[in-house]
Amino acid sequence: MHPLAQDQAHLAGAIRLAQTHSRAGHGGPFGAVIVADGKIIARGWNKVTSANDPTAHAEVTAIRAACRKLKTFQLRDCVLYSSCEPCPMCLAACYWARLDRLVYAASRADAAAIGFDDDFLYREIPLPPARRRLRAAQSLRDEAREVMRAWFADPDRVPY
Amino acid sequence: MHPLAQDQAHLAGAIRLAQTHSRAGHGGPFGAVIVADGKIIARGWNKVTSANDPTAHAEVTAIRAACRKLKTFQLRDCVLYSSCEPCPMCLAACYWARLDRLVYAASRADAAAIGFDDDFLYREIPLPPARRRLRAAQSLRDEAREVMRAWFADPDRVPY
Repeated sequence: MHPLAQDQAHLAGAIRLAQTHSRAGHGGPFGAVIVADGKIIARGWNKVTSANDPTAHAEVTAIRAACRKLKTFQLRDCVLYSSCEPCPMCLAACYWARLDRLVYAASRADAAAIGFDDDFLYREIPLPPARRRLRAAQSLRDEAREVMRAWFADPDRVPY
Repeated sequence: MHPLAQDQAHLAGAIRLAQTHSRAGHGGPFGAVIVADGKIIARGWNKVTSANDPTAHAEVTAIRAACRKLKTFQLRDCVLYSSCEPCPMCLAACYWARLDRLVYAASRADAAAIGFDDDFLYREIPLPPARRRLRAAQSLRDEAREVMRAWFADPDRVPY
């Protein structure tokens, strides 16, 4: 199959997951598929309200499932197909998972149009902490840094 | 106890979790505590490498645990104490969880100094998708929007 046709086939699969699971009342209308070497490794859909987990977005759920299946914490050479542009949480999760590529269908503006905060969050995250809507304070920096330095100095540490 | 002293006591608890669990080889040197009405509801620590879950940062782990315990997907009136400034994934998770406030110890620069991508991610997320390090493409937008519109039109949907 042509690469673009293959991308669209997997993306259509992610959209079908969004449809099936949002109709079933599992959560928001979002689905995701993770593919390696043209094969589907894991599927995910939004389970925020049914699993009582605000981090259970489709992309995060798919990443967790793929890592569980491959017994790894990195998904190099994997592609994530998502029915909607990932929110900043899910986008950062894609980086932490070291995904190779991302393909999405709807955009953050489409999510905003049905009441989601994705677009708002893209504006909040880059702000200095003091200017964000979420109140924040900092303290005990040196104590935490000492723990971090000790970990970094440990030759047995597992980087990620 | 004075509010500031209480904040520091909980933050010190988060730093102790970071120390204990990173020494035990569970993951990176990060810990978090979630508090409501002055009481600790949940604890979290980084489990990325031991649980094979790139999303298992201390803050995400604590949010999941608190929601599981309270049987809710929103943590209004809760405060998150983290041994380090949350990365964009964890910061967005704080917003999705509707946390009231955030207190942290080390900063994103301290995380960068021991090899973590937090600071890099804060620079990537605000970029237009085409300018980011992670390759991305968009397709089938209308098909996904139709599924999203159907969910939005459903009077039984659970917003979050």
